[in-house]
Amino acid sequence: METLRVALGDRAYPIHIGAGLIDRADLYRPHIAGGGVAIVTSSVVAPLYLKTVRNALGAAAEVIVPDGEQAKSWQGVEQVVDALLAARLGRDGLVVALGGGVIGDLAGFAAAVYQRGVPFVQVPTTLLAQVDSSVGGKTAINHVRGKNMVGAFHQPIAVISDVAALDTLPDRELRSGIAEVIKHGVALDAAFVGWLETNIEKLLQRDRQALAYAVRRSCELKARIVAADEREAGERALLNFGHTFGHAIEAGAGYGAWLHGEAVAAGMVMAAELSALMGDLKKSEVGRVRELVRRAGLPIAAPALAPERLIELMALDKKAAKGRMRFVVLESIGRARLRADVDDAAVRRAIVAAVQ
Amino acid sequence: METLRVALGDRAYPIHIGAGLIDRADLYRPHIAGGGVAIVTSSVVAPLYLKTVRNALGAAAEVIVPDGEQAKSWQGVEQVVDALLAARLGRDGLVVALGGGVIGDLAGFAAAVYQRGVPFVQVPTTLLAQVDSSVGGKTAINHVRGKNMVGAFHQPIAVISDVAALDTLPDRELRSGIAEVIKHGVALDAAFVGWLETNIEKLLQRDRQALAYAVRRSCELKARIVAADEREAGERALLNFGHTFGHAIEAGAGYGAWLHGEAVAAGMVMAAELSALMGDLKKSEVGRVRELVRRAGLPIAAPALAPERLIELMALDKKAAKGRMRFVVLESIGRARLRADVDDAAVRRAIVAAVQ
Repeated sequence: METLRVALGDRAYPIHIGAGLIDRADLYRPHIAGGGVAIVTSSVVAPLYLKTVRNALGAAAEVIVPDGEQAKSWQGVEQVVDALLAARLGRDGLVVALGGGVIGDLAGFAAAVYQRGVPFVQVPTTLLAQVDSSVGGKTAINHVRGKNMVGAFHQPIAVISDVAALDTLPDRELRSGIAEVIKHGVALDAAFVGWLETNIEKLLQRDRQALAYAVRRSCELKARIVAADEREAGERALLNFGHTFGHAIEAGAGYGAWLHGEAVAAGMVMAAELSALMGDLKKSEVGRVRELVRRAGLPIAAPALAPERLIELMALDKKAAKGRMRFVVLESIGRARLRADVDDAAVRRAIVAAVQ
Repeated sequence: METLRVALGDRAYPIHIGAGLIDRADLYRPHIAGGGVAIVTSSVVAPLYLKTVRNALGAAAEVIVPDGEQAKSWQGVEQVVDALLAARLGRDGLVVALGGGVIGDLAGFAAAVYQRGVPFVQVPTTLLAQVDSSVGGKTAINHVRGKNMVGAFHQPIAVISDVAALDTLPDRELRSGIAEVIKHGVALDAAFVGWLETNIEKLLQRDRQALAYAVRRSCELKARIVAADEREAGERALLNFGHTFGHAIEAGAGYGAWLHGEAVAAGMVMAAELSALMGDLKKSEVGRVRELVRRAGLPIAAPALAPERLIELMALDKKAAKGRMRFVVLESIGRARLRADVDDAAVRRAIVAAVQ
């Protein structure tokens, strides 16, 4: 087991990474005070890990929400809060979020607002959650007008990332998680991209050592940025590399048709193409991004979606936020930066280039 | 106009107090960035002040929620969030909470969770909100299982307290606000109690200078405690003097039958009696508390509620929180402290003594 610390002053917390951590009582115990414990999980994760985690925790209340993104709703939060109140969880109680990104977002938000905030521990059971959503304290639910429109910054008091729990993860979700691993490398760390180019097959074969390294390095990279910019005033936006395009793909295809990581994968290729068109990135480096995405079994483009439609969806996003449209582009592999001066013509050409 | 500052580091903010502030554009302008403005108010306050505030702000979206405590609900938050999204309020937008404690709690909570938090300005229009709920960053909605069970600590970026706006406040609500003014003195500042004993009639006659002083001194006292203990880990609990009894009275009478300040007033007399029974407070000082409450036209007891019923309700509260029952008692007027060693027999005797 390795333990990283996210340096956030009085909100600092450890991330434990290794195989076989999910049932280790010693990892949970330091975080249990007098106010009770409640596990929040999904109907898919519950049959796999709920009993194990409950045993490790001792007595705990349980909340099982329906699987999938639709749980990230007002009704989902109400279900969790009702259950926490029924279990009489106190202000020094503990919420354990057991599951993927949806559970982390939902249980984290419920913990953020329950009695004005109670501590929570993340136990991510998907690669996506282990490398990305469990780190950084962003919690949220969706609204018909947009994803993650209601939420809170609420840091967990610990993250327990068991790479052995990834054994039960469907292949497609594993690859979706690898997309965010690739993103961390491509946006922030050229050496990590080199490691990925050597080890991508090991990740796909669920080699635990390789997975643990990928999780650790991703968390290190993300944690460093979160520590410097917790509330995304600046640098943290670099973690959105590929996401402006990716969100448009997800929305255009209908939420749920593409997995988040799949959309980000194609979005990264588009963003790399855009970086080359803007004169920032060498063509050969675009090729490296594209090749890594391809080798991970992830989509490199969204050929069924017309460029005009994607641009329209990105513009909607922009309008909704009353903000400027900013793109994360690459200066080189491992060096991302924000550009606000990107016009639609360049975006269109980047989308077209990704398909080729 | 006087301006206090609440010393909360990077969350520090000013409280402006005076007559005729509500339409001063110069007080709002420094807080308006590019993301739009939305005013949240109630059906009772809207006809009185919405137009005035909108004029001072320039363009602003508006959300009018039904008057009363029932607006502090999931549906209330959804209504506000829906309206903010419909108005396309951005992450650098501003929410203006125009109204009493309910509006401050609801709009503040909506601002806390909208896009993971946007700034808000409090424009309290009741004395209770000016002296208490607008200071300190507690926001919340209610749940069938209890009041303020869901919420956030979200500090406003400014408070604009216009004592001239209290002209439209019903007498009973004015007195309810005076109860919290008395609480600040009795729990924290003997000199302020002396001032109140001299000036209580002026407050009841809505003398603006007296009101402005009472608001300022209450905010100073509360702000000092909030700055030292933002999340109520310790000292902030002293602000709950009279509230353990008061909450039981509110619940026992049925929410809405007693105003919050009325219940706190009777609760303070009970808490003072308890302090004397525990040997902390002189009998003569209990008399001063009782007399001040009486002169303010506030109830000194809840004769229709049996002591057993109040104790039962307090025990329920305790059970819900899985916590120890702690009472705020007085060592002397102006010096409150927490005691965890209070038994039911003493509580019962204190309730009975209050009626006499």
